[in-house]
Amino acid sequence: MLGIDPGTLRVGFAVVDRHGASQVAVEWGVLRARGELPARLLAIYAGLTELVKRARPSVLALEDVFFGKDVRAMEKIGEGRAIAKLVAAQHGMQVAEYPPATVKRAVAGNGAASKEAVARMVTAAFGLREQPTPADATDALALALCHCTRGGAPQAASLPRSRRRRWTTEDLRHLPG
Amino acid sequence: MLGIDPGTLRVGFAVVDRHGASQVAVEWGVLRARGELPARLLAIYAGLTELVKRARPSVLALEDVFFGKDVRAMEKIGEGRAIAKLVAAQHGMQVAEYPPATVKRAVAGNGAASKEAVARMVTAAFGLREQPTPADATDALALALCHCTRGGAPQAASLPRSRRRRWTTEDLRHLPG
Repeated sequence: MLGIDPGTLRVGFAVVDRHGASQVAVEWGVLRARGELPARLLAIYAGLTELVKRARPSVLALEDVFFGKDVRAMEKIGEGRAIAKLVAAQHGMQVAEYPPATVKRAVAGNGAASKEAVARMVTAAFGLREQPTPADATDALALALCHCTRGGAPQAASLPRSRRRRWTTEDLRHLPG
Repeated sequence: MLGIDPGTLRVGFAVVDRHGASQVAVEWGVLRARGELPARLLAIYAGLTELVKRARPSVLALEDVFFGKDVRAMEKIGEGRAIAKLVAAQHGMQVAEYPPATVKRAVAGNGAASKEAVARMVTAAFGLREQPTPADATDALALALCHCTRGGAPQAASLPRSRRRRWTTEDLRHLPG
């Protein structure tokens, strides 16, 4: 599955594979977009499309919209989310959305957990040697973990065999953001 | 140019061509999207892409975000806008955004003009026999008209000659929404 923490300047992503009751972080990092907004949307679309074609996830896990006071920031996050949902639809992926408090509760046992607590739990749950960086990637890993722990079906069984891939720990890699 | 009134269920559109100081409404209507949200984003993306490939506009005119009280509705409009901006970026179009009051003032001389007054002025400005329907298409025509009257350059001169098209009144058609 693919977890995404969308913005229009930075999109944190995490590809996570499930093996029975455990999960493996396959790759994570941040897509960065520069320039004016239309160019950034284009860069995000191209980056996510490439990622989805490579990793072939069947589920997109997204944070549900947080309605903050900064409406302009909200608008930009909404635009990043829309592009992510479009790419998911183009590749037949299911979309699962979780409110921030649900993610924190699922990962750290507390809907008001600190970013630091979430980062520690993500590191432990995926058996990583050190905390993932940057923060956007950690958020994307937390989303994917939330989807796993909430019983989200990995969906791989419904895909044609040719689209399945097996990951081992050797495949683990960290794309520097 | 292409005027868009975006939503995720209905996207009003209007293709307008400028000839010196006058403008011609080339086609207008509504793209409708059905089903779940990811499928609707896909339908909007496909519909707008087809429209842009056919009409080859150089400018996308959009309504600037209206921050209403219904945040869910706002989110949906934002997603439609994001898809429209992505399609514009993919085809090298400029994006011009106008707040609703600016559109009303440019079209009907009054930033608080009624929808009916805007529809009458749009009908007159484009020399249409009857008021365009549905309302989403009228809004898209108003946006395009606003862009014309505010001196937005039609940009055609900067396009390769092969991409230019000449429209006459015979080309006028109304795509039923």
